[in-house]
This record gives sequence, structure tokens and C-alpha cells, in this order.
Amino acid sequence: MLSFESDYIEGAHDRVLQRLVETNMEKLTGYGADPYCESAKAKIREACSCPDAEIFFLTGGTQTNMIVIHTMLKAYEGVLAAQTGHVSLHEAGAIEAHGHKVLQLPQHQGKIRADELREYLVHFMQDENHEHMVYPGMVYISHPTEYGTLYSRKELEELSGICREYHIPLYMDGARLGYALMSPETDVTLPVIAKLCDVFYIGGTKVGALCGEAVVFTKNHMPRCFMTMVKQQGALLAKGRLLGIQFDTLFTDDLYFKISRHAIEMAMLLKEGFRQKGCTFYLDSPTNQQFIILEDSEAERLREHVVLSFWEKTDDTHAVYRFATSWATKEEDVEALLELM
Amino acid sequence: MLSFESDYIEGAHDRVLQRLVETNMEKLTGYGADPYCESAKAKIREACSCPDAEIFFLTGGTQTNMIVIHTMLKAYEGVLAAQTGHVSLHEAGAIEAHGHKVLQLPQHQGKIRADELREYLVHFMQDENHEHMVYPGMVYISHPTEYGTLYSRKELEELSGICREYHIPLYMDGARLGYALMSPETDVTLPVIAKLCDVFYIGGTKVGALCGEAVVFTKNHMPRCFMTMVKQQGALLAKGRLLGIQFDTLFTDDLYFKISRHAIEMAMLLKEGFRQKGCTFYLDSPTNQQFIILEDSEAERLREHVVLSFWEKTDDTHAVYRFATSWATKEEDVEALLELM
Amino acid sequence: MLSFESDYIEGAHDRVLQRLVETNMEKLTGYGADPYCESAKAKIREACSCPDAEIFFLTGGTQTNMIVIHTMLKAYEGVLAAQTGHVSLHEAGAIEAHGHKVLQLPQHQGKIRADELREYLVHFMQDENHEHMVYPGMVYISHPTEYGTLYSRKELEELSGICREYHIPLYMDGARLGYALMSPETDVTLPVIAKLCDVFYIGGTKVGALCGEAVVFTKNHMPRCFMTMVKQQGALLAKGRLLGIQFDTLFTDDLYFKISRHAIEMAMLLKEGFRQKGCTFYLDSPTNQQFIILEDSEAERLREHVVLSFWEKTDDTHAVYRFATSWATKEEDVEALLELM
Amino acid sequence: MLSFESDYIEGAHDRVLQRLVETNMEKLTGYGADPYCESAKAKIREACSCPDAEIFFLTGGTQTNMIVIHTMLKAYEGVLAAQTGHVSLHEAGAIEAHGHKVLQLPQHQGKIRADELREYLVHFMQDENHEHMVYPGMVYISHPTEYGTLYSRKELEELSGICREYHIPLYMDGARLGYALMSPETDVTLPVIAKLCDVFYIGGTKVGALCGEAVVFTKNHMPRCFMTMVKQQGALLAKGRLLGIQFDTLFTDDLYFKISRHAIEMAMLLKEGFRQKGCTFYLDSPTNQQFIILEDSEAERLREHVVLSFWEKTDDTHAVYRFATSWATKEEDVEALLELM
Repeated sequence: MLSFESDYIEGAHDRVLQRLVETNMEKLTGYGADPYCESAKAKIREACSCPDAEIFFLTGGTQTNMIVIHTMLKAYEGVLAAQTGHVSLHEAGAIEAHGHKVLQLPQHQGKIRADELREYLVHFMQDENHEHMVYPGMVYISHPTEYGTLYSRKELEELSGICREYHIPLYMDGARLGYALMSPETDVTLPVIAKLCDVFYIGGTKVGALCGEAVVFTKNHMPRCFMTMVKQQGALLAKGRLLGIQFDTLFTDDLYFKISRHAIEMAMLLKEGFRQKGCTFYLDSPTNQQFIILEDSEAERLREHVVLSFWEKTDDTHAVYRFATSWATKEEDVEALLELM
Repeated sequence: MLSFESDYIEGAHDRVLQRLVETNMEKLTGYGADPYCESAKAKIREACSCPDAEIFFLTGGTQTNMIVIHTMLKAYEGVLAAQTGHVSLHEAGAIEAHGHKVLQLPQHQGKIRADELREYLVHFMQDENHEHMVYPGMVYISHPTEYGTLYSRKELEELSGICREYHIPLYMDGARLGYALMSPETDVTLPVIAKLCDVFYIGGTKVGALCGEAVVFTKNHMPRCFMTMVKQQGALLAKGRLLGIQFDTLFTDDLYFKISRHAIEMAMLLKEGFRQKGCTFYLDSPTNQQFIILEDSEAERLREHVVLSFWEKTDDTHAVYRFATSWATKEEDVEALLELM
Repeated sequence: MLSFESDYIEGAHDRVLQRLVETNMEKLTGYGADPYCESAKAKIREACSCPDAEIFFLTGGTQTNMIVIHTMLKAYEGVLAAQTGHVSLHEAGAIEAHGHKVLQLPQHQGKIRADELREYLVHFMQDENHEHMVYPGMVYISHPTEYGTLYSRKELEELSGICREYHIPLYMDGARLGYALMSPETDVTLPVIAKLCDVFYIGGTKVGALCGEAVVFTKNHMPRCFMTMVKQQGALLAKGRLLGIQFDTLFTDDLYFKISRHAIEMAMLLKEGFRQKGCTFYLDSPTNQQFIILEDSEAERLREHVVLSFWEKTDDTHAVYRFATSWATKEEDVEALLELM
Repeated sequence: MLSFESDYIEGAHDRVLQRLVETNMEKLTGYGADPYCESAKAKIREACSCPDAEIFFLTGGTQTNMIVIHTMLKAYEGVLAAQTGHVSLHEAGAIEAHGHKVLQLPQHQGKIRADELREYLVHFMQDENHEHMVYPGMVYISHPTEYGTLYSRKELEELSGICREYHIPLYMDGARLGYALMSPETDVTLPVIAKLCDVFYIGGTKVGALCGEAVVFTKNHMPRCFMTMVKQQGALLAKGRLLGIQFDTLFTDDLYFKISRHAIEMAMLLKEGFRQKGCTFYLDSPTNQQFIILEDSEAERLREHVVLSFWEKTDDTHAVYRFATSWATKEEDVEALLELM
């Protein structure tokens, strides 16, 4: 059975797992105070060209979004996000459960637009009743978005500029950041992100790790007593080594970038194949997630051989399906899928 | 200076205040355990034709919305409301601060539509990812809405029917309920509301009281240990008499309805006058709030004589203004305003 | 039937109520933006000899404690309080419901001791695991305490000194502050409190108002966007005049102090009477609450004529009862009670 | 350098890690819906002799405590725990941050006593003011306790009996449960725990896993939509396989019990050695944590060779130190340590 169901269906990259095996019996202090965590942080700082970045390892994406947003916002603030943002829709209300409203901006293939952001902020400040409303206290973007699309450097600069003008942090959800950075169509690098964002995370769970996300605070934005608040949210791993060793390995010899590039190559192969087969694309994605519209009977036929990820109905007889590649995708599987189309 | 700024610019109806004076030195047990609270509840039950209604007095509208929603929802549930609902926009994130998402439905002159509610619920239940999403756990409507509009009995029956089908409570915010019930255009009575809603509140603050809202739970919907949770939210008044005496007076000799009818009569006078003056209505409101579009220079001129309530811009040179009447509005003030137009 | 059940069994002081009547039909802007609120704040600033004090009116004591503590603490902080503090025991978990632990200190007749506070803080800072613990972020005291006792000026200075040394605010719950200030045994004045505390509240509900507490932030301690957070907690009264007019009256011609003095005079009469009757005092209270130990049959007999406030059992056949006087207590009632003993 | 710092200084048991390697490239559905999670649950149900147990895998101990308590309690309830309970002291206020008070019971070598529990409940129910207080809604115990001590079967039966009488669930924190079950001094088995507790967790992090705890709900106590609430707390692992595979391995061929027995054997060797060396025990622990009082200079000397875990000062020149063994402890290290004493 083929599967393009998601980019987290396998375990960890072989080298990551091997490193866990090699270091397994070393006696290390807990809660992230071990040398692997330190080493991983140093390597990430370097990859970001951001020597004063403060870094913290967490376990998963929703946990990271919830903790970053909860600890950086004031009680009277909410977070601005696209209607389709992961924090808006698919985190079971984690942001609200921790006290904050997700203020919705229109989405354009998963992205927000600088002019609409500015309009929101101008409108809010001018509203005579704004003391009775939730203050916009952060801008959340995902890169790639939930639809696989990317912000250009210019777009990020515009968003970042508005955020600084209004003194609100710009936060990038990088659950699939490797796949953004290795896209052939991007002009955005890790140092650019570190320069333009106030906080972002480098996703591990979907890019070669068993679990783990590296939160990067730039410009001294890490909240005071952050570790205690992480503990308070039940998110402080006793064996911090599990995260430190994985990220240390991913950021050794550019492993994170190399395996991300592989996923992108597989995605482009798939995309080109879909195109040649005359498939209808839902949108044009330059990253590891490809969205195709299939007729229901066609989808049914495919499901006999492939695990499909249903996205949404487009009309009574058609629906969107997502095909995700990853660091683990094999070229032969891509070819086998294309033959089935 | 004339003022149609809002329906809470004066204190309390004379008879309400007088009753507070008369009973002032009676020694009464605190926290709502006094005979006036009991008497008020009995009268409200009768006015609702709902002998088993459970009633609790709270101080204000946002407090009531927050407590009702917070205590009735499960942690994984959110509340469905119109985009323009008070809980969506103008309560400073009170619902989210207490852990719950406000799930937005489209608004049509402040109202939600049964077909769109059903569509939301069907879509949610069919979504394969709904375990990662906020469950719709309550429907919130305001009656009159924030735009002065009203649900018809048929519309309420449809909403109520869907709610029962999906086993989620229907909650009506009746901050201005008196002004809804006395509108010449309504076919909705208090007993109808008690029959169709699972919980609602009868607004006092905007209808003759210094402060106070009467929450009515029907069908045994009052959450267990409700009083303790009210206390926990800092909303249990030590001198519960302040609320009990006011509502007891408002529900004696139909005072609540009589003073509401007066407000509606004043509103209709104003509406008819605006029509004769050729004013542009923003929408057609059958209750005590009238929304007029004014050209900026016209508004500026009026402001010399009248306190205006700015609502929103419609274009570069025009804006919507709200004119609210109340139990306290004098006919001579309406006439004076109309002369100025 | 006599009643010494509590100090909130009557309505409001006559002059307060009369002022509400006189101003009733004035058209005033809502949410505390009316001139009576401004005037009341100015008078309180003067009474505190604290020209830069920031003042906000809230409705009740638990609400005030919860909002002050919630808005001033960081997420990782808790509030230090006596085991018997109102926030520890009798607010239905309001502090925890808003995210913060009440860190308990030993109580001595309701008071905390400076040496034990210092010991707690020293111990916390030295604990190698304190990053896994709740940080002490505020000290809460009540004055008078729940047992009617008072801090001396020297005791307050010591507590205040430690708080400043550790950079944590000192918060005084003054639900019955008038009765503290007018005690014959105190050397603590309102200006002294304003100088030593970072925030405190002047209780109205138990000292002549229908409802209402005046929170006083000194040293620019009012949290940013405080009003929005008050709104978010459902605690912003639409008709802010209700609080403004009451406090304006209470702080006109020293009314607050005069009526407090009356309560104290009645309490001292009661205390002296109890002494002459040979009653057993539970503790020595210099304020309006007197605590007496009664044998069960004696209590039963009294209950036929007096509403008693049971406090706690001392042994199988005895219990503590509280007798509270207030601004409304009549000398003849005190005498009648003493005759019954 | 020797280390008895804690029972989580190494990675995972070799067989656990190997199983992760073997299954690494299998394509598995996320969020716990994989066959390894199912298999692990079936094996745990069998080990507990509890065929209808509902099981959920979480990542760490504080996370588990917070989620179990938060999802099982009503808003007006708190959790009863020993003053020294992990939830009381060392979880950075996680319980309070999620809205609930930890109600403290006295501790006796880390344990609570049935008579004191009953006294608390009786006292609460009799208190005339209990509607203004936090309701006791759960009893939390740790087994072994934070001091390594164990409840006897009789003690557990008494606690369980009181809980059922008062209709409140009994929750056991089993972070080190394996070390309790394999103690030579216990008469408590896993089926006994499953019979007496309403919910408990089987700790993995400290007993052979990289991370992971298995929450076991008995008697249909798993809250509705539990998975959604886990997601909402950021605790739902995308690669649920990481937990499923580990627990499946730990509960294959009694691995969990065998490695726990090894830890206990090492602890007993250490304990006997300490005894022979004339060390002063802080208390008598029958499990893997041994607490010794050392004179400061002695501790200093030892620190040159051993990583010590400081517990608390006993006087000016002495302190308690914890020595923890685990599944990974080598006999030669125990001997080396004893030679140093």
C-alpha cells in the first residue's frame, strides 16, 4: 500500500535515530540542561546567523503555538491569523483555552496580506470602542502555509515592517520550515527569517525527528521565566536529551536542509507527473504538499492502492486531496503513484 | 444638550429607586438568599409561564454572557454566534479569557440564519478532522440584535429545532429584551422564548434598573453548583437585595413591559420623524435603536446640540449613527431632536 | 429579631442613597467616564495624600481580589497569603480559576508575620528546584483581617520593606478598611497605607454603599489596559455612576470615616458589655467584628432572639460566633443584645 | 563520575530503543491511531486484569497530572493532595494555571491518611459557608510517593472506600509505579490498583522509556472527547507511535516488571550498604529512592566523585540527599559508591 497521507507517517531519519542509540547510556542531567541541547542551540544560532537568538525545544506544533502565543501575549491581547491558519482551525481551541482570541484575517491561498493587516490595525486603533475589544498583540503566519504556499521575502518584509510600526511581534509557525527553505521558488533563507521575525519555530516532527520543534526567539523576546511557564503547561521534557540530540544531529552537516531538499525533489517529481497526467491542481504549491482535485470514483479507485488524505469537497462529485512528500519519500513510490493516476 | 447616546445614560426608573429607599434599612441575609430575590424569581417564572425555571441575578451583560457560556460549555466546546454578536466583538475577549472559542456565523442585519447554522453543524460532523477542532456546544443569539433587529417566532423555532436535534443549548442575550417584546412588529412573547430557549437573560441595566440581569434557565439547565461558580468569577453580590428588589419591582404591575413600551413608542416617533425628514436609514429597526446615515458636516452640526453615538463609516464622507431611546426618553426631547434634523 | 449577622445586612447609608436619587435623571456617559467617578477619585487621592494614585471602582470584594491579583501577576507567579486569608479560603477558588496559586503562609490571629514572609522568600530563592515551582509574585494581606485584627504601622513597614527588597507588590484587602482606620488601637492612616502598599482597596460594600470597592494603585502600578481586562472579567459596570456617586458621597465631608467610627463605637460598647457579662472572647479584636465562644445551649437560646453568625466549633459543646457591627448598627440593638446575654 | 542523581539520566532500555529502530520506516497513521498503540493498550489492560480500562498515552508526568485533573474536575472543584505531593509543589502551578486549587492535606512521609481525608470531607460538608469554598473533587496520591514510601493495600482500600462514599475519584500518580510494584515490601499489585483507583498512570519516563506515561481510566471514567482536550493542551503527539511502540515493548514479556525489579535490587543493595556503613537514613524507603542525611563536609568530599541530588537542609551543617537507582543502574556503580562512603 502506497501512502502520501502526511509527512509524519515514518519515524525519524536514520542518522537521528542512530545518534539516539549511540548516546543512550550517557548519564545526562534532565530538563534540557545537557550538552546536546547546548550544542544544538549553538548550531541553530549559527544557521540563523543570529548569535543572540534564545532557543527552546518543545515537543509538537500545537504545543509550541500555544506556549509561544500564551507566554508572549498580555491578557487583553489576541493573535491575528489567517482564517485557515493552524491556530484558527485545527488546534482544538488551544489558543482560546489558554485565554486568547484568534483574530481572523482573510486568507489568500493560506497567506495573509500586508494591506489587509494594516487595514485591520488602522481600523482597530480608530474604533472609539476599542477598549471593549481584544487588542491585536501578535501576528501569526505559517511558512509554508497549511496549503503549501510561501511568502516571498518582500511579503515578509512588509509584514515585518507593519508589525514593528505597531510594536507587535511577528511569529512564524515553521512546522514544515525545511520544506519552505528548500523550495526552488523561494528567496527566503533562515537568516532572513531570523531578521524579520520576532519568534519562529523550526519544525522537527515533520522534518526528520521523532518529535520536537525548536523555538527561536530573536531580539531578546524570550519571556522571563519561560522554562517555568513551559513546565506549567506540562511541556518540559524530563529527558530533554531526546530533543537536544535530535536537533543536534539535524543541524550537523546540513542534514536538516539535505533531507528537506529530498522531499522537495520528490514533490516536484510528483507535481510534474500530475501535470503530465492532466490532473487538476487545487492551487500551485511550491513545497512538499500538493493539492489535487479528484472525481469521486477516481478517488475511490485510487484508495485501493494509496492512502489518500481527503481535504475538502469542491462540488457534489469532486474533492481536494493532499499528497505529501517528506524526507522519507522514495522515488519508486512517487513513480508507482503516478502510474496509478 | 440632548442625548440619544445609549439606553443606559440615566439611573433607574423612579419606582425601582423608591423601592430601594423604602427597603433600605431592612436587615436581610446576603448573597441572594433574601425574600425579595425569591419574590422576584416567582414573578419572573410567572411572566415566562415557566414554573420550573431556575433564575439567578447577575450584575451586567458581559458578566452574564461570560458566566452562562463558561459554566454550560465543556472544555472542548465553543459557542456559535454572529460575527457581529456582542460576545464576538465587544466583550474584550471575555469568552476566550474563560477558555472558549467564539465560532463565527455570518450575520444578516445582526441575525444568524437557520440554514447557515445547520450547514455549519453538518459540515463539522462530516469533517474527518473534527476531533482536532472546537466542538460547537451552544448557539448564542441576541434579541434584539446589536442592530435592533428581531427574530420572528418562526425563525426562533427553526433555530431551536436545530439546536435540539444536535443537543446543543440555545442561549438568548436579552440585554434589551423588553424593547423586543414591546415592538409592534414582533410575534415573540416571553413564554415563547422560555419554551424555545434553554437559557436566556432578561436585561435590567438597559431597561429601568441601576444594574442587573436575570438569567433564566429552562428545562433544568442550571449547572450544578452554579452559585459557587458565580462566586468564583467575582460575580456574586454580597447585597443580593440590590438585584432582587429591582427585579421584584420591575415585575410588579407589568412595570418592565410598560416602560419598555414607552421606549418603543419614542423610537417609533423618532423613526417616523426621520422618515419624514428624508433621512437615510442604515437598516429597518423595529426596536429602540435606530441607525441613520449622516453626512459628516451634518453630523458635526448636530453634535453641537446632541450627544451622538458614532457606529461606523460607510464611505469617506458618511457614517452610521445610532439613536437609542429608553424607558427614560422624553417626548419633548424626541421632538427637539427632529427639529434639529 | 436582632441581627449582628454581618456588616452587610442593610442597604446603603441614607446620604448615599439620597445622592443616587438626586442625580438619577442626569444623563451621564457610561463605563466610569462620568464626572462623579472623576470627583470621587480626586477626593480619594486627597484622602490618601497620594496625588498620583490611579483609582478604579469595582463591584465587590472577591471580584476586586481576583482582578487585582490576576492582572498584576505574571503567569508563573502566585500570591502569598495567610492560610485564613479571604483569597485562600472563601472565594471559591477565584484566584486559581484565573490561573494563580495562593501560596500559604502561617496565620497568627489572621495576620502574617514579617519573619515568616522573609523565611519563605529566602527559602524559595535558595531552592535549587525553584524553576519548577510557583514564584511568589505578590503579598496579600487583609486589614482588618478576617478575624478583626489589625497590623500595626511597624508591622506594615516591615512587610512593605521585604516586598520592596524582593520587588514584589504588597496588596491590602480593605473590605472593611474604614473599621480599621477608626479603631482606637490603630496607628495606621490612609496616607500610611498609600505609602506602604503598592495597591489596596477601600471597601464600600461593608461600609455604607450598596456595592462597590475603590481600588487604589500607587507608584504607577495600574496594569496597562486595566479597563479592558476589567471588561474581560465581566466587571465593568455600564452605569459606572452607581459606583462613582456612592464613593463621591462617602468621601464628602468625611462621611466614610464618620460612619466607620460609629460602627467602632458600637463594637466597643458590645465588647465592653461582653466583658462585663463574663463572656469568653475567642481573640481580642479592636474592630467591628467581635468573636465570642458560646456554649451550645446558650447559643440555641440566643438564636430565638438574635441572628447569629456561626464561625467554627472549638470543642464538642462550644463554638465561636461572630458579632458584627456596622455604620447601620443602633445603640439600642447593642443594649438589647447585651441584656440577652 | 558516578551518578545517582535521578532515575531519568539515561535514555531508554535497550530493547525499547531497538524496537523503535526496527519499526522506524513503517508507514503509520498519526495521533495514536496506529496498531502499536492498540497492542500496547491491550497488553496493559491484561496486566491490570481490567478488560474495560480506557488507556491514553501522554508524554510526561506533569502533563499527565494536569490533563487528568483538568479534564475530570468540574470548574468549582479542586484536588486534595499531600502538602508534599508533586502537584502541590513541583509542577510550577500547572494545576492552578488550568483553573483548579490544590487542597492540601497533611503529609506523613509523603503519604496522606484516611482519617485526615475523612475529617476534611466531613468538615467541608458541615461548613455553612461551603458554597463559597472550593469543592473537593478528586483525591491525588503518588505511589511511590515523592519520598519513596508506599501505601499498603489496606491503606489504599480505606482511601478508595472514602472516595466512593463521597463520589469523588481517586487518582494515583504512578510516575515510578514499576518501582512500587516490585518492592519486596508491597502487597499492592497492578490489578489491585486498577480495582481501587478511578484513574492512574503507569510511568514510562522513569522506568525504561525515552518519554511517555500510560493513563489508565477504570470504570468508564475517561472524559468525553478526551483526545480533543489532550490536543487542546498541546499534548497530542503527531507520531503517537513513539509512545505506542515503547509501551508495547515494555509490556511484552514482562519487561516493565523485570527492569523495575532490577532497580529495586540495586536500591536494596545500596540501602543495606548504607546501613552497614552506619549512614543516617532520613526515612525508611522500600523503593528505588533512598534518602540519606550527610554532614556538609562529607557531602562536599563525595561530590568530587558522585553527582548528588540535594534534597533539603536538616540543620546548619547537615542536609538530606537522594540516591536514586533505576532500570539502568549497574551493580559495580553501587559498589563503587559504597566504597566512597
